[in-house]
Amino acid sequence: MQITTVNLEAPYLLYLGDCPDMHHAKTGAGIAYWRPERCAGQMCLPGCPVDLGLAEMSIQDAIDAGVRTVVVGVAPMGGRIPAQWLPQLCELAEAGINVAAGLHTRLNSLPPLVAAATKGKATLTDARVPPADLPVGTGRLRTGKRVLMVGTDCAVGKKYSALALHRELERRDIKSSFRATGQTGIMIAGEGIPIDAVVADFISGAAEVLSPDNVDDHWDVIEGQGSLLNPSYSGVSLGLLHGSQPNAIVLCHDVARLKIDESGGDYPIPELDEVIDDVLRMARRIRHDCFCAGLSVNTSSLSDFDRDNYLSKMQDHLGIPCVDPIAIGMTPIANFLLKYTS
Amino acid sequence: MQITTVNLEAPYLLYLGDCPDMHHAKTGAGIAYWRPERCAGQMCLPGCPVDLGLAEMSIQDAIDAGVRTVVVGVAPMGGRIPAQWLPQLCELAEAGINVAAGLHTRLNSLPPLVAAATKGKATLTDARVPPADLPVGTGRLRTGKRVLMVGTDCAVGKKYSALALHRELERRDIKSSFRATGQTGIMIAGEGIPIDAVVADFISGAAEVLSPDNVDDHWDVIEGQGSLLNPSYSGVSLGLLHGSQPNAIVLCHDVARLKIDESGGDYPIPELDEVIDDVLRMARRIRHDCFCAGLSVNTSSLSDFDRDNYLSKMQDHLGIPCVDPIAIGMTPIANFLLKYTS
Repeated sequence: MQITTVNLEAPYLLYLGDCPDMHHAKTGAGIAYWRPERCAGQMCLPGCPVDLGLAEMSIQDAIDAGVRTVVVGVAPMGGRIPAQWLPQLCELAEAGINVAAGLHTRLNSLPPLVAAATKGKATLTDARVPPADLPVGTGRLRTGKRVLMVGTDCAVGKKYSALALHRELERRDIKSSFRATGQTGIMIAGEGIPIDAVVADFISGAAEVLSPDNVDDHWDVIEGQGSLLNPSYSGVSLGLLHGSQPNAIVLCHDVARLKIDESGGDYPIPELDEVIDDVLRMARRIRHDCFCAGLSVNTSSLSDFDRDNYLSKMQDHLGIPCVDPIAIGMTPIANFLLKYTS
Repeated sequence: MQITTVNLEAPYLLYLGDCPDMHHAKTGAGIAYWRPERCAGQMCLPGCPVDLGLAEMSIQDAIDAGVRTVVVGVAPMGGRIPAQWLPQLCELAEAGINVAAGLHTRLNSLPPLVAAATKGKATLTDARVPPADLPVGTGRLRTGKRVLMVGTDCAVGKKYSALALHRELERRDIKSSFRATGQTGIMIAGEGIPIDAVVADFISGAAEVLSPDNVDDHWDVIEGQGSLLNPSYSGVSLGLLHGSQPNAIVLCHDVARLKIDESGGDYPIPELDEVIDDVLRMARRIRHDCFCAGLSVNTSSLSDFDRDNYLSKMQDHLGIPCVDPIAIGMTPIANFLLKYTS
């Protein structure tokens, strides 16, 4: 069974269009952070407030800098490319620069872009096309070890936490694979399965294919998607949880997130011990000894003092390592994970 | 927003192929039970042990009886049409008889069938094609009342229970709509959304579209899919639960089902109060006062004495009406539902 692989030619130009805020630019931000050596610049429409810290480029700048691929770095809700982005993307394609994106709208479903790419001999790559013929999940327990990031909501640092934990395991020479489940992760890793783009009946089957049987001391560090608490995406999250059959979960959270984001209802984030309990109840239906190996929190909205105070209080309360993956790193969580699974 | 509508011309011939058992023939069995006036006969391949109690027909019989549509009445795991069914289906289509099915394989993706239908001027209808452009779920609470069937597993009587409860509400002149979420339900009702065929990101959005805002005293009786406990389909079940935002659930169970069926692992069905607790924990994240209005159990494997004994013990233990929807009917559950939501 093949998983989706994407091979993008560097250097990249990260396209931001008229992205309203950093929150929506997480694809671009993730690529800029984890693959800086591949990024030449960024391109925005006038008035776009997002800045990834790369050189702002015009189309001519991109050509002069030898950019090989323009990567759409924004994930609008619903996953459709706004019409106002097309002129720039077409001009780039016509200049021979490949276009890559990971939205529900396929690039090759946009006739002007297809025409431009044909003219410029550029390729169009969609990271959100799931493999064909995915199987229905079977629930068979697989060999090897797995840790899955779960979240209190979307966009709370699940991908970052997974990549950081994977890097920490690699640093210790522990066999480990980062398993990407979303478009950004796939573009960073070069492969993965866009779990939210598969047909509903095959969610857990896709998760099973993504982390196949492995040697006993190998870890799959699996990027999470959505949240069991988010009414828009909870189905994806549960299918991924059951298909991943993790030995351990890491709960990811943003301390500034008080309620589910972008929701038509008012859904406060419950106490974190309740969230962990919800996830473990579901996880243990498949793997009875699944445990929570830590809390990974985005505390960028807090002062250093408040951050340390918050993490220390949470650690006392939950009895598991609580870190900010950027300020503190994933070392305490890796220690705890390995201690209880060796 | 349109939902999938199917208009099938009667009389029907229910096609069973080489279906191994009644469990896989639930589409055919459901249509034969709820729409007997539309069914002229059934057709099997040699050796098929399933009998829906209809006249067994040859192709010539079907033509002579004026059959207008052959409905594929079997749901093989994975949803693909076996090659050995094609000769009969093609011959029927070539004779001008329309073909309808609700499998993942689309009928019009099968070139021999398309050719036969073109020659016979027959139509090919897929009940499992979801509407285009489904929205992402928003979680906005909607007006009107909703009751969702949930299950301990697949194929434990969720559709039957929903249709029986809907019929019971109609009998009392209570405004009510049966909302179909699977191919059989859609073929019985003439409309619905095949929830397991939508792209994962849109599961709860589809459920929201399926039961839109309504007057305060209107009930949507929503067919469930899968089970939170079934590792193959739990994602579909949770997305449907959150998108349906039910005021109440009815737990459906088969007393003979001791563990999750057709699974690659060994997953016993937990105690039913635990299952109800799991479902309500998830449901109440969206509608905080959701409650369980009853237990609807297939007890066909028990004697009358053992059935009454089982139901009475469960009722004492759970404190909610416990019925076999066929032997007892849904009256006690309807009473309980209306008492606590009026």
